[in-house]
Amino acid sequence: MKNYLIAKSRRLRSTPYTSRIEKQGVTAYTVYNHMLLPAAFGSLEESCDHLKKDVQVWDVAAERQVEIVGKDAAKLVQLMTCRDLSKSKIGRCYYCPIIDENGKMVNDPVILKLDENRFWISIADSDVIFFAKGLAHGHKFDVNIFEPNVDIIAVQGPKSFALMEKIFGKKILDLKFFGFDFYDFQGTKHLIARSGWSKQGGFEIYVENTSSGVQLYDKLFEQGKDLNVKAGCPNLIERIESGLLSYGNDFDNNDNPYECGFEKYVNLDNNIEFLGKEKLKDIKSKGIERKLMGVILDLEKLSITKSLDIYEKEKKIGDLRSACFSPYFKKVIGIAMISEPFCKASQTVYLNIDGKKVSGKVCDLPFI
Amino acid sequence: MKNYLIAKSRRLRSTPYTSRIEKQGVTAYTVYNHMLLPAAFGSLEESCDHLKKDVQVWDVAAERQVEIVGKDAAKLVQLMTCRDLSKSKIGRCYYCPIIDENGKMVNDPVILKLDENRFWISIADSDVIFFAKGLAHGHKFDVNIFEPNVDIIAVQGPKSFALMEKIFGKKILDLKFFGFDFYDFQGTKHLIARSGWSKQGGFEIYVENTSSGVQLYDKLFEQGKDLNVKAGCPNLIERIESGLLSYGNDFDNNDNPYECGFEKYVNLDNNIEFLGKEKLKDIKSKGIERKLMGVILDLEKLSITKSLDIYEKEKKIGDLRSACFSPYFKKVIGIAMISEPFCKASQTVYLNIDGKKVSGKVCDLPFI
Repeated sequence: MKNYLIAKSRRLRSTPYTSRIEKQGVTAYTVYNHMLLPAAFGSLEESCDHLKKDVQVWDVAAERQVEIVGKDAAKLVQLMTCRDLSKSKIGRCYYCPIIDENGKMVNDPVILKLDENRFWISIADSDVIFFAKGLAHGHKFDVNIFEPNVDIIAVQGPKSFALMEKIFGKKILDLKFFGFDFYDFQGTKHLIARSGWSKQGGFEIYVENTSSGVQLYDKLFEQGKDLNVKAGCPNLIERIESGLLSYGNDFDNNDNPYECGFEKYVNLDNNIEFLGKEKLKDIKSKGIERKLMGVILDLEKLSITKSLDIYEKEKKIGDLRSACFSPYFKKVIGIAMISEPFCKASQTVYLNIDGKKVSGKVCDLPFI
Repeated sequence: MKNYLIAKSRRLRSTPYTSRIEKQGVTAYTVYNHMLLPAAFGSLEESCDHLKKDVQVWDVAAERQVEIVGKDAAKLVQLMTCRDLSKSKIGRCYYCPIIDENGKMVNDPVILKLDENRFWISIADSDVIFFAKGLAHGHKFDVNIFEPNVDIIAVQGPKSFALMEKIFGKKILDLKFFGFDFYDFQGTKHLIARSGWSKQGGFEIYVENTSSGVQLYDKLFEQGKDLNVKAGCPNLIERIESGLLSYGNDFDNNDNPYECGFEKYVNLDNNIEFLGKEKLKDIKSKGIERKLMGVILDLEKLSITKSLDIYEKEKKIGDLRSACFSPYFKKVIGIAMISEPFCKASQTVYLNIDGKKVSGKVCDLPFI
């Protein structure tokens, strides 16, 4: 595949860490929430290997926040998601499908409950802010909706715990998975969550004080030398192996949460009001016609730039949406939307790639 | 400035013409509405020169459509814009600021009135679809909102008229500026508007039938040989010289339409209902505190990747948001948000660029 440059401009926003990652060897960007998100520091395979063994610091400022604050904040947040947040607690993160009037996916953010009337929606790549503004206006909600100045630094990998302990002390280790709290760095409080877009463990630092955040970014590298810390970014191989789905890649506004395997976040038996609830009840009672599944292909290299058709004999039964070579499986693995009754483990499939017939097998997610 | 690659994926959607433009020499992409938008075919200066003299065919599929159809379609469209559409006509395009509850810009699309109850909003780079869905739900509007399968081909430049006449016949020349109609190409009807994101004249073909559109794309190059047709894309130099503003670059959700110079599209003295109307009345009565202006700098090269501070003596008075070297002026020209009372032609300003003090002058837009 030929390589193309990214044409930078103010519209593809830089982050407070951009000048740093460019010195640290970022080689490719993607664009996420109208912002530059590093996509590679040289070899994806070496980065994946390093992430699984050591610790990485990521510029994930592109995970933008939508702040919703005010008397009706909880009502508005609930209206957007099919996950029942009526018992949600301050200091916790909630992975929530955001749903439209047709029961289709709008986003799959992590929602942080900062206070009874104050939330941050930490969004995937779509403008949830305008969905919230539209709903608030129509429903005459008493809320304020804006993008706060928050630029996340993620610290990911098995040695992230040791690195964070060096800087924030032992108490950071008490933080439970998907919990968050405030921790001091040189006189500035930072919101830190035990979360992140890898399955290797770690933290996300929600930096509001930019100058303190930039100092903290540098401190992580200073203190992490003996832990073999490196600059990194969400890793395509690691996220596919782990079955971490990506809005826009694996699913989008044409798919419903059941098709995406999000059934445990769909709560229909209650009195809460949210968009698409009746549609989702209908889908649940009828059953879905297709589902996101893993596929393992007899192939050693594949770059996906758009959906690729998947066949069973001569019949198109689905489409491959993400893929990479996995050093662990020594094959190409991918995430595909596959129709009933073919969306079951061990189903044989094939694809036409560059004029060649490539065979593969369906499997459950995650791969590892 | 160092160059970086773009990491392609399904999330950065390809267009039906991507494989063609990659053979035709596209060198850089930007991302616009979650889709690849070509940003350069080699030299920007040569492309600008060619666009002003001959004719170019552009893959601008990234100008996505939001279709709003149904009994309350006109009401919803009007609710989103401060431009009075009560006398709008079928077959016409309307440039419309989309406004939020704070009177700030959400987008600046061209809206096509397809029927009394059916509109296409041809959007700049933000997810207007979710704003519309939120408003429709809250207001209980009877509408259907979706992204139709439309991938625009633009034909731009002074010889675009001759090229389009070759394919569609003399009647295409009767189309008035910002009018649209349906024209036959080998048995398929295509919606064609006299519009486009340059000031060199031309057309936009709203391709719904993809396979016919791809044939038409090829036909434009076949028939355009003697007109020196080339593949191109919206040109940074041409659009800045012409004062064509860009959402995300020159203005965004932090700016109001008066600051952007859109006052002729703000209609307050009427009974129509739209978001932010009271805020805009308030802004109008108080007067604005800053405005988008042109600047001409004593400099021969500048690439903008984020806002640059602009000073008058020691005082920060604004920020430069877009810039390029203009072969016409033989200087760097740019678009900047500048505070009162400095936002007037001939005001002297300076910037610190790479540690050097660079002086310049404010001017009115457009430059040419």
